Amino acid sequence: MINKKKFIAVIGGSQCSSQEAEVAESVGRELARQGAILVCGGRGGVMEAACRGASAEGGITIGILPGDSRQAANPYVQIPIVTGIGYARNVVVVKSAQAVIAIGGNYGTLSEISHALESGIPVIGLNTWSLSRKGQPDNSIIPAQDPTEAVDKALNLAANQ
Amino acid sequence: MINKKKFIAVIGGSQCSSQEAEVAESVGRELARQGAILVCGGRGGVMEAACRGASAEGGITIGILPGDSRQAANPYVQIPIVTGIGYARNVVVVKSAQAVIAIGGNYGTLSEISHALESGIPVIGLNTWSLSRKGQPDNSIIPAQDPTEAVDKALNLAANQ
Amino acid sequence: MINKKKFIAVIGGSQCSSQEAEVAESVGRELARQGAILVCGGRGGVMEAACRGASAEGGITIGILPGDSRQAANPYVQIPIVTGIGYARNVVVVKSAQAVIAIGGNYGTLSEISHALESGIPVIGLNTWSLSRKGQPDNSIIPAQDPTEAVDKALNLAANQ
Amino acid sequence: MINKKKFIAVIGGSQCSSQEAEVAESVGRELARQGAILVCGGRGGVMEAACRGASAEGGITIGILPGDSRQAANPYVQIPIVTGIGYARNVVVVKSAQAVIAIGGNYGTLSEISHALESGIPVIGLNTWSLSRKGQPDNSIIPAQDPTEAVDKALNLAANQ
Repeated sequence: MINKKKFIAVIGGSQCSSQEAEVAESVGRELARQGAILVCGGRGGVMEAACRGASAEGGITIGILPGDSRQAANPYVQIPIVTGIGYARNVVVVKSAQAVIAIGGNYGTLSEISHALESGIPVIGLNTWSLSRKGQPDNSIIPAQDPTEAVDKALNLAANQ
Repeated sequence: MINKKKFIAVIGGSQCSSQEAEVAESVGRELARQGAILVCGGRGGVMEAACRGASAEGGITIGILPGDSRQAANPYVQIPIVTGIGYARNVVVVKSAQAVIAIGGNYGTLSEISHALESGIPVIGLNTWSLSRKGQPDNSIIPAQDPTEAVDKALNLAANQ
Repeated sequence: MINKKKFIAVIGGSQCSSQEAEVAESVGRELARQGAILVCGGRGGVMEAACRGASAEGGITIGILPGDSRQAANPYVQIPIVTGIGYARNVVVVKSAQAVIAIGGNYGTLSEISHALESGIPVIGLNTWSLSRKGQPDNSIIPAQDPTEAVDKALNLAANQ
Repeated sequence: MINKKKFIAVIGGSQCSSQEAEVAESVGRELARQGAILVCGGRGGVMEAACRGASAEGGITIGILPGDSRQAANPYVQIPIVTGIGYARNVVVVKSAQAVIAIGGNYGTLSEISHALESGIPVIGLNTWSLSRKGQPDNSIIPAQDPTEAVDKALNLAANQ
């Protein structure tokens, strides 16, 4: 049943390198293979690549859009959520997930990482931000070496959410 | 394909009469039978009854929650969206739909009707609010006599969105 | 002291008739004379006229803007709050006030009236929306005949908030 | 005139060390002395200390609250903005400012830093987060050694916003 599935967010830049797109697509594929539902911000770049991967494996994709139009979703979003609240939608992306996989990304991605950690939602990182505060490293972002490891860690941690 | 489906919001009180619950359940059933995806605020009352009806017919149900926890969704919500933005989530409920069916309801429902009309999203009413401004009736809420008529009108109007 | 002052929202269309603008300006003037702080959506029409009136009497004006730029505020807004959350900012306008005065208005104004009533914040109406639900009149919007009566009622009701 | 003043946000933990509170109070004092308006999240810790400092020097303080009640503001907030949108209000705090001063802070503060940088709003840091992405340091947070330097930098940068 759909409501036993895990919801995993994939976050990253709306523009990204081809290497990041490849990683994101693999993450999306692996999430779908393992029966998880993909949550993302619904736009291009990492989000589109992840949705493309998940769709190719028959997975479900949710895109939580910042603007007022469902037309702004990438073509692989099956369930567009139209918020109209701009970047405040970043909060909704992470809160709607039980774990978050961050791939590269800019300040928008960093805000999503922050909101997730603030809410106690685990964050797995693939070549993304690293943090220190007051001069001390903060290791809350859990590193992964490749898409499969990222998905495995996300699903394991989501089980406790 | 899921992304060719119509998204229809069902709105109404989180507490409701048994008659309203019956109407909402029929609306949910009919939406699912006609292949539409149900969007709602994810809580009890009219929302729960509509989700129960849609689920019984194998339909997909989305609950856009005001709080911070997916646990607050009614048991028939398959896709909980956790916004954490309180009643401002009412905007997200209607913007995520191509047409809205209002059943009874209190001021929260009225705010959703208003946000829908503001955004040009059609609203079909089943024994709900009626409006006049500056002393003149405003007939923007399209009346329906029963669940089937409401669903038919919603799907027809959604086709143009 | 500023924090003993009453916060009163004035809501209405971003476009309005010259008569409505006159009423809004008088409401703004009277609020300032009585020492209240004016809260509004920060845009044109009724909002601008109310801010102009309040400013002319040395009052403080707060404009809670939907977009991303403080430049979008009308020239009489002294304190622009830049939300970036679109129409969801309507919730913030009314929640930041202890009473609301509605002048004419369209669906956006109706959404603000609804959110105020939902939150138990009194609404005083000057030739604005009227409501009925399930065929029964809902008299929650308190009518006023002129700007002075509206301001007096708003300040009296705000005292209990 | 009030609308020629600069709006500067002070962000940091709702709980903080006594040393951070001292720094925040000095920042608040200095902002008020230089005629700036203080924007913050309206709660305790760094926010309260900054508001106390600004109030002591006759400055204006704005508190943009996450919840539904103006009573939750710290006692030095003169202008409470009641958003009801939870942590999504962090976006509003930074967008309402022309520059941001971060003092220490946890993940909520990091989300505010991120949203500011995303929006092109300068961030000055006093013993706060530091960032690197994809293994490279990101020096977007402008360091300051003490409250006076932080305020000077913030006001200079705000002049260009």
